[in-house]
Amino acid sequence: MIQATLSPDLIDRFAAITGPAHALTAESDIAPYLVESRGLYHGTSPLVLRPGSVEEVSKILALATETRTAIVPQGGNTGHVGGAAPREGAMDVVLSLSRLNRIRDIDPVGNVVVADSGCVLAEIQKAAEAVDRLFPLSLGSEGSCQIGGNLSTNAGGTAVLAYGNMRQLCLGLEVVLPTGEVWNGLRRLKKDNTGYDLRDLFIGAEGTLGVITGAVLKLFPRPLGHEVAFAGLKSVADALTLFERASSRCGTALTGFELMPRLGVDFTTRHIPGVRDPLASRHDWYVLVDISTSDAPETAARMMEALLAEGIEAGLVDDAVIAASEEQRRALWHMRESMSPAQKPEGGSIKHDVSVPVSAIPAFMAEADAAVMKAIDGARICSFGHMGDGNIHYNISQPVGADTAAFLGRWREINDLVHGIVLRYGGSISAEHGIGQLKRDELAAVRAPIEMDLMARVKRAFDPAGIMNPGKVVRG
Amino acid sequence: MIQATLSPDLIDRFAAITGPAHALTAESDIAPYLVESRGLYHGTSPLVLRPGSVEEVSKILALATETRTAIVPQGGNTGHVGGAAPREGAMDVVLSLSRLNRIRDIDPVGNVVVADSGCVLAEIQKAAEAVDRLFPLSLGSEGSCQIGGNLSTNAGGTAVLAYGNMRQLCLGLEVVLPTGEVWNGLRRLKKDNTGYDLRDLFIGAEGTLGVITGAVLKLFPRPLGHEVAFAGLKSVADALTLFERASSRCGTALTGFELMPRLGVDFTTRHIPGVRDPLASRHDWYVLVDISTSDAPETAARMMEALLAEGIEAGLVDDAVIAASEEQRRALWHMRESMSPAQKPEGGSIKHDVSVPVSAIPAFMAEADAAVMKAIDGARICSFGHMGDGNIHYNISQPVGADTAAFLGRWREINDLVHGIVLRYGGSISAEHGIGQLKRDELAAVRAPIEMDLMARVKRAFDPAGIMNPGKVVRG
Repeated sequence: MIQATLSPDLIDRFAAITGPAHALTAESDIAPYLVESRGLYHGTSPLVLRPGSVEEVSKILALATETRTAIVPQGGNTGHVGGAAPREGAMDVVLSLSRLNRIRDIDPVGNVVVADSGCVLAEIQKAAEAVDRLFPLSLGSEGSCQIGGNLSTNAGGTAVLAYGNMRQLCLGLEVVLPTGEVWNGLRRLKKDNTGYDLRDLFIGAEGTLGVITGAVLKLFPRPLGHEVAFAGLKSVADALTLFERASSRCGTALTGFELMPRLGVDFTTRHIPGVRDPLASRHDWYVLVDISTSDAPETAARMMEALLAEGIEAGLVDDAVIAASEEQRRALWHMRESMSPAQKPEGGSIKHDVSVPVSAIPAFMAEADAAVMKAIDGARICSFGHMGDGNIHYNISQPVGADTAAFLGRWREINDLVHGIVLRYGGSISAEHGIGQLKRDELAAVRAPIEMDLMARVKRAFDPAGIMNPGKVVRG
Repeated sequence: MIQATLSPDLIDRFAAITGPAHALTAESDIAPYLVESRGLYHGTSPLVLRPGSVEEVSKILALATETRTAIVPQGGNTGHVGGAAPREGAMDVVLSLSRLNRIRDIDPVGNVVVADSGCVLAEIQKAAEAVDRLFPLSLGSEGSCQIGGNLSTNAGGTAVLAYGNMRQLCLGLEVVLPTGEVWNGLRRLKKDNTGYDLRDLFIGAEGTLGVITGAVLKLFPRPLGHEVAFAGLKSVADALTLFERASSRCGTALTGFELMPRLGVDFTTRHIPGVRDPLASRHDWYVLVDISTSDAPETAARMMEALLAEGIEAGLVDDAVIAASEEQRRALWHMRESMSPAQKPEGGSIKHDVSVPVSAIPAFMAEADAAVMKAIDGARICSFGHMGDGNIHYNISQPVGADTAAFLGRWREINDLVHGIVLRYGGSISAEHGIGQLKRDELAAVRAPIEMDLMARVKRAFDPAGIMNPGKVVRG
């Protein structure tokens, strides 16, 4: 049983491990670690520990297991589901990995970087660039999210189509187990069939099985050719057909295929400084197509031109523009990445991070739209996302002039409605953000009991004392 | 405790599930299921069950758990490490998945095929081809190995460089647990972050955690361009440099980069009908380069020509030939795939299936060669393999005229020698064949106790009765 209080004596014992300067207890020091960026979670904690070495992490966890103290690992605290926030009303100790921020080794010949888990994603991208390599994980919060959090949530982002999500970008891990024992799985191997896949068990476990302290990440050649286009279309079905053609034509050179609705373009041009509609006429739907090629710049240009020509000829694309400079490419991606922030000035927004089989996207969206419009008169659906991955951020802005609190009060009801349709299409209620606290009970409700039972067995096997991030993913 | 005998009554209860026609007990019927193709394992079994449905598999496992009967799942029985062979002297029941051989669904738009685990790999390749798609897993035994075995061993093969191994090619699984409960994880999603990664736990578990009965596999566009070249080089170091250049130039269009020694070319031209040396002069080392492109045939041709020109100019490539027809492409691959069979007529061969970080291949091979030559005067080292994956089949043919039995008697000693060097380079003692019985004790000896302990915890959590393929991967 996890203890409900934390004695001053125990706080001192923890503080002795990190040194008092890195054991925060003052309310004002702790405050930033308690609140999640999106504002859904406000937790409580008597102590934030900022260890400076793997050894200190190990000692902290050993003491936590001995004393049955709940530990919440936290990286950049950029999550959306309450996975890295301490629970409300509990005495969770926050374990911040921020000081473990060293790049241990970078090998452009072997195409790997070995990094502490507290490294900020953008720092890893930069380190790769410095040796003429690409680390492809890219997402909105890359300037502050940490690689340990990316691993623990199996982060996706904008380059999944070509490079896969975090699971595919990781070769090896170093993990401190709840007992304080350290599993050194920092392998640099592309092939290694020696027993159970422990690595993939820790990836995506949201810190409930152990604390990731280091990782071996894959690097790639930097693409020589890069083209980004923005196209206006009549329907989601046409966007899907265009995606299929792009996928056949470009293979893994297709690095992005993002869907956006007219409403999203309206919101971003209205609210995000510097964003303008790149096309002269209005269209119901838009796609951003990103193509990267490794052999020569011309290949990407040729692919993009041929794809758009084919799309226009087939009547799928009504108008399109290809970015002519790096600045224009960035501007197109900036519009796409502003879809979510641009909803804020429009009032409350009920969000879904769902996936369905790619071929089911049009049918799923039509059905969900009808159900939502029936439930909320005047709802403004702004559904956009990674079409090529089947991952739609199905967001709903409140009706114009509606009461925000009353609208947001229907969050769970609308979630149930949309997720019900997602599940009928064999989809997922969390494509890339994870489970955390937000979807823990919902997951248990929608998944078969045997699946939840297997997960609970894994949890018990790895964390019998139940100290690791309790209350997240699975019931403690 | 697993029971040591199988009563006639219990055999009848099992036979009642499949029907007597599919419950083999006659010695001659059972014989083919007991011996592994490479001849290292000759097991014993009183009963081979050939269920015709998932429901029958479920009933068999429930009865096995109830009666503590050991079950050995078996696919095409093409393994190399004794993973699918029943143990010698035990009373293991073989569970053959061969009758579960239906392709349940194939969706060229969604790019997935859903198949029973007993489907032969070549049948899945054919089904994909019939809808103009590629299922890229390809290996020597594809005409008889089954997809369930490919999954259970996380098979690699010749297209890992571009498409990944089996783990990367699988989206979802259906698994019958030891209790007979069925986990339906047959998802078709590219992104799904909802709890622990059970799928990857079953993949590569060699049938020790449950029986895979079905899978959702990824399909890909069929490449439009395909080029295969064969080049003669001076050294492994030059081959590595050429690989790095190929990788930078071609990205994921580089679908194969295989290393072969002169000795292997001698063996294949000597023993394999129809194989001839494609180059006029002799070279110490050879690489087979395979490039596939999705946009246009010309892209592959352009890439290959540019790569070889660059290689020749840089003094890396001494001579090269590009296959001019599909027949020639097949002939080059046939030579590569004949490396292992061509060793047979040369007498005994001590084999290793190892991997090291790609950049460490030359140093590893130099060190291993020196150690082996010192240990066995006249040893003929025929090391070849998937250079781009860091995976070398480090095989040693006996000295000419040596006593085969005496040579093979040194298997373990030479394994220890080579694996010791592999481990110093951070490598793996089983890159793609798995652990089975062959490397079970060695794995326990070379891995940290905490890693073996975590694996044992997984085993106990999923198979508390210990009925699933006992004695394989981890100790029962």
